Amino acid sequence: MKKFFEPDTVALIGASDKITRPGYHLFSNINAGFGDAFFPVNLKLGKIENKACYPTVLDVPSPIDLAVVFIPARSVPAALEQCAEKGIRRVIIESGGFAEAGPEGRILQDRCLDIARAAKMRLWGPNCMGLINVTQKKVLSFMRSHWRDNFIAGSVSLVVQSGMLSAGFLAYLLTDTPFGLSKIASIGNKIDVDESEVLEYLLSDPDTRVIALYLESLERGRRFFELSRSTDKHLIILKAGRTELGAKAAWSHTASLAQDDQILDAAFRHAGITRVYGFRELFEVARALGAARAKGSGGKRVAVLTFSGGAAVLASDTLADQGMELAQIGEAATNKLKSVFPTWMTPTNPVDLYPAIERSGHVQAMQQALEAVIEDPNVDAVYAHTIARLYSAGPDYRRIAEKARVYGKPLVVWSMGDAAGVAETRRNLEALGIPVVEEINRGVRVLAALTTGKVARIYGRPGSAGS
Amino acid sequence: MKKFFEPDTVALIGASDKITRPGYHLFSNINAGFGDAFFPVNLKLGKIENKACYPTVLDVPSPIDLAVVFIPARSVPAALEQCAEKGIRRVIIESGGFAEAGPEGRILQDRCLDIARAAKMRLWGPNCMGLINVTQKKVLSFMRSHWRDNFIAGSVSLVVQSGMLSAGFLAYLLTDTPFGLSKIASIGNKIDVDESEVLEYLLSDPDTRVIALYLESLERGRRFFELSRSTDKHLIILKAGRTELGAKAAWSHTASLAQDDQILDAAFRHAGITRVYGFRELFEVARALGAARAKGSGGKRVAVLTFSGGAAVLASDTLADQGMELAQIGEAATNKLKSVFPTWMTPTNPVDLYPAIERSGHVQAMQQALEAVIEDPNVDAVYAHTIARLYSAGPDYRRIAEKARVYGKPLVVWSMGDAAGVAETRRNLEALGIPVVEEINRGVRVLAALTTGKVARIYGRPGSAGS
Repeated sequence: MKKFFEPDTVALIGASDKITRPGYHLFSNINAGFGDAFFPVNLKLGKIENKACYPTVLDVPSPIDLAVVFIPARSVPAALEQCAEKGIRRVIIESGGFAEAGPEGRILQDRCLDIARAAKMRLWGPNCMGLINVTQKKVLSFMRSHWRDNFIAGSVSLVVQSGMLSAGFLAYLLTDTPFGLSKIASIGNKIDVDESEVLEYLLSDPDTRVIALYLESLERGRRFFELSRSTDKHLIILKAGRTELGAKAAWSHTASLAQDDQILDAAFRHAGITRVYGFRELFEVARALGAARAKGSGGKRVAVLTFSGGAAVLASDTLADQGMELAQIGEAATNKLKSVFPTWMTPTNPVDLYPAIERSGHVQAMQQALEAVIEDPNVDAVYAHTIARLYSAGPDYRRIAEKARVYGKPLVVWSMGDAAGVAETRRNLEALGIPVVEEINRGVRVLAALTTGKVARIYGRPGSAGS
Repeated sequence: MKKFFEPDTVALIGASDKITRPGYHLFSNINAGFGDAFFPVNLKLGKIENKACYPTVLDVPSPIDLAVVFIPARSVPAALEQCAEKGIRRVIIESGGFAEAGPEGRILQDRCLDIARAAKMRLWGPNCMGLINVTQKKVLSFMRSHWRDNFIAGSVSLVVQSGMLSAGFLAYLLTDTPFGLSKIASIGNKIDVDESEVLEYLLSDPDTRVIALYLESLERGRRFFELSRSTDKHLIILKAGRTELGAKAAWSHTASLAQDDQILDAAFRHAGITRVYGFRELFEVARALGAARAKGSGGKRVAVLTFSGGAAVLASDTLADQGMELAQIGEAATNKLKSVFPTWMTPTNPVDLYPAIERSGHVQAMQQALEAVIEDPNVDAVYAHTIARLYSAGPDYRRIAEKARVYGKPLVVWSMGDAAGVAETRRNLEALGIPVVEEINRGVRVLAALTTGKVARIYGRPGSAGS
């Protein structure tokens, strides 16, 4: 699997010189990542942008680790036979028109698999967008080539069983709230390489700490859940085809069979996989977990610091959904809190900081309160709410992030207010290792994953399902 | 109730001349809306910004429709007695420190109610942010005065049982994706005026088409649900205090008692109220419903047009959650669709437009497909997905919006891709009456509300709960 993500030499069967075509984007992307170790193949073109093309892979004057195939489905089996003859052991078929397109495509797909098995060749796809190794800036995908420079290397890897959606969502990922990515794998019809194999590679990948998956079906479930349980990396899953209607749609998309969602749901829970229900939710939870530096040790007692009673109520509801608790704040922490509150008040959890902000000012109130609850042995994790204002001074978050890390207390911030202020808060705090979320229940999802490594057994209940 | 939202003369008890104080924002906001019909009251100040202040309401040389009170809780009863003596029939108490603060506050609150009842005076609050009549640009709230110019008049009204949260979320509303608002009511501890009375006013308000509520408890449930069932205006609710933990937090926030959430949930369903689980979800669904011009007539058969099989699967799952169906596209529409598809393909619902885009180009494929399904008598509503690119040409959405309106087919767009492109798509399409959502399941929530006026009985299930 490693050589799929980290090949030394690559051929592209179906390179195009038309700059609006996916075959050109593939050419451009692979050329940028591999240079002289890249061999485009096209029967009719001698050159693309001054780079020599070869009529077939058999004409390439070098061994090839991996071939990417992007030609019409009916031509793929013949190309695979040539790959076999050339001794190529790994092929990514990005073309569509296979099982997802009907019975004829299914026959084509089966032929491809037969050829591969006979040649001990591993197949990735078909009907997919290939893969992107962000760490090494290697793009084996037909995504638009001008996005290449937008990637930020980081700790989150994505596995998606979808083709074109990758295009829309890559654009979204790279423009909305870009975050650090490690590997992106689009596995399509997954007739050979499946999510479990990719997962196994990602678990061994030192650059990956968080793995977000979009799947329409789960192959080899036993293996998948064994792997999931074996790791302390965070797994987040968006499983589509939950319903009969969805499963029917999945069949014509990636030829995925229906599976009993309740059984899967229980298995996700048991394996400590965080389940989400929307693409943006998938990305936000993954980004937040990728940003987090402080990790808990299993406790579920959360201190909520807020400026809003309403936010405290919603947070409490969602904490209950996740099987978590409101901490009983200890004596020392209560005394530290009292030092910033009006003298007549004894703050309790959830802590509405508004009176403290009135008395001691925003910066001092937040600093004291955050330090108090992080230090409190009765508290396992902290959920802090902030009103975002652009360029407004806050507490010393560097010091707070470091304290949270040292004490092993996961800390998540929910920010509401001026939109540019929220974006600024997220940028600043996530750079320090404090995740910032936009919707209260998503923050609790992140806290649950950070604190216990498991999401609660009832995470499918209303209110916990994202937003 | 009308005179609360549309008073002619207003007094403010607790005006401040310190520009960072809420009492100053109140002064500035009310002054801007009422001018000479506004009478600030402050024992110690003769003038604020050259406007005369009166020591008490009794000194004001004019009848007063409504008094806003923002002084420490312990001083409120005496101020109310003066209001009673002055013959003021409506008072908004924005100060906190009442039942939510403990037993002493509870006693103060009861005294206020006694005074009001004896004087046939109606009380709004306490512990709230007052109200904003966006239609008439009248702000009876301590929100920061520089936000006043950011309001856009429109059809969505908000009712929130929370104080400071309003601040954060007003800032968010006015800066993230601003949309047209009509009335904003923050009702706090609601010791007299409650959500049902406000709802009754909003149902009669010609400027309000959509009502979004954040509530921690529901008073006079029978009346509330009678009103909800009596209207074809859209109601969306975020009910906090669902869980024991949340209800406990709600008690110390707005002194709300726990209620059986399952019973409430069934009643929401029965009354056709859309339930959501997060603030941003509340705003997005409200904004989308406010933008929609085409309304359905009860049918549940949805055509899904997409560029992504994955999005189609997620949409199908969520349609099933909402008790909706995938339409069987009729013969005429199928033939019209075939005209843009490769000749060998017979498109079925969900319609993956990717092959049509490849063959006929994006604009032509979308135009033909949208018109085909809107005209199809087998289709009750349309969910269209687009990849957003900045400044890219699209189909003639003006024509499509008009067709959807004429045919009575709700049309919702989910947009994914470049973030600025998504924002542009939303701006352009919502101006034409086509709602644009950011997360697939939220779009289905909106479709369900537009199509049937009722959300499905299982909307509390996983995946339907927003994101």
